[in-house]
Amino acid sequence: MLPRFFVPGAHAAEHVIELPDDEAAHLTRVLRLSTGDAIRVFDGRGREWHAAVGETSKQRVTARIEHEVAPLAEPGIAITLGLSVLKGDKMEVVVRDAVMLGAVAIQPLITERTEVSAGVIERGGRVARWQRIAVSSAKQCGRAVVPTVSNALRLEEAIAAAGQPTVMLAEPHAADGAHTLRDIPRSVELSLLVGPEGGWTAREVQHARAAGAMLVTLGTQVLRADAAPAVAMTAVRVAFGDF
Amino acid sequence: MLPRFFVPGAHAAEHVIELPDDEAAHLTRVLRLSTGDAIRVFDGRGREWHAAVGETSKQRVTARIEHEVAPLAEPGIAITLGLSVLKGDKMEVVVRDAVMLGAVAIQPLITERTEVSAGVIERGGRVARWQRIAVSSAKQCGRAVVPTVSNALRLEEAIAAAGQPTVMLAEPHAADGAHTLRDIPRSVELSLLVGPEGGWTAREVQHARAAGAMLVTLGTQVLRADAAPAVAMTAVRVAFGDF
Repeated sequence: MLPRFFVPGAHAAEHVIELPDDEAAHLTRVLRLSTGDAIRVFDGRGREWHAAVGETSKQRVTARIEHEVAPLAEPGIAITLGLSVLKGDKMEVVVRDAVMLGAVAIQPLITERTEVSAGVIERGGRVARWQRIAVSSAKQCGRAVVPTVSNALRLEEAIAAAGQPTVMLAEPHAADGAHTLRDIPRSVELSLLVGPEGGWTAREVQHARAAGAMLVTLGTQVLRADAAPAVAMTAVRVAFGDF
Repeated sequence: MLPRFFVPGAHAAEHVIELPDDEAAHLTRVLRLSTGDAIRVFDGRGREWHAAVGETSKQRVTARIEHEVAPLAEPGIAITLGLSVLKGDKMEVVVRDAVMLGAVAIQPLITERTEVSAGVIERGGRVARWQRIAVSSAKQCGRAVVPTVSNALRLEEAIAAAGQPTVMLAEPHAADGAHTLRDIPRSVELSLLVGPEGGWTAREVQHARAAGAMLVTLGTQVLRADAAPAVAMTAVRVAFGDF
């Protein structure tokens, strides 16, 4: 795979495009590429081009577009992943994996047992950081689409805004009347909600059900919160024949 | 879920059993439990008991067995996970997740692109450490079975020792003639091989195929080596209707 660079707004009409600062630094300082080296450029919305490195001055780094290429096939099901914000590095791993596994959008959630407050998320510039991780993951895994990481919402707000079906991943022992993967109606989009380390509260489960969400359990083991999103994304895609 | 303790060799005939040192320390120093507190004890081979904390002296910590309980249901398919040794913490996360996702055995592999040498694995006591992580993961996820982590083998040795079917997870761009999940013959056991960060070499793929392994790809994206084992375990279990 050639080195890939994210250039939002890139389009084929321009023959020479300038790379954003982060990408320019990655090209020159990390990968140490030079004028003429073959690269790929993608716009984060599903288009990708074969290109060559152009100018690499301190002021600007450019790419010369050569021809458009077929982007990596996106999943057949558009999954919006709503996930409880996890502490520190764990959230970064989860965002990275969700992008790799084909999420079309990532909705950080603040739930009753989320251990990070809305204030910390805002003051720490966390959403911008997670968005940078989403870019980096798309570059590595080959996707030409960069999922948007939205501002954190309370669970109730996220459920109200979510499309149908909405699937709430439940722990096995909270499985009173819960469904399995096979019960999820086949569709082209789906909202998938994954909870915090302590799990959902009874009140949250009740609210989600009342709002039309479907409670689904996976297997019998307790899944760790930092592994559950990747497991759930994979499970839904395989169950839908999309992996 | 009550706190769970691993006591290899525990059996119902003994009314009072002594906890191994690691477990005793976990009970008294981490969880700070006292005589009479309700706990669970499991033998790592699929049996579990309800018990109460007995003696908690510096010399020994015991549990009083009360009655046997139904263990967590194990997966319907017994997956032996052969995985290239990853550097540092990554291997620990992968072992932890493989146990959580129901592996019955874990076979660390040394492949051509594995970045950790057999010498480092041996001198660093890595296998013993991974085995402790397997115990810890079983305790957390609720399994009464602790998968054995074997000594590292070269890929060729592991393939020769593996049962059938043997499935080798391949990268999408190495997918010349590779199969999908749907092609895996349904069976009650399966060996699943997952490669290192740089992927398998062409020679390794050729050898595995010649030895009867089936090359399988998952999706179109490149999966990170530290996420691939959990994704592959989940995918196989869902494809087999076992999750």
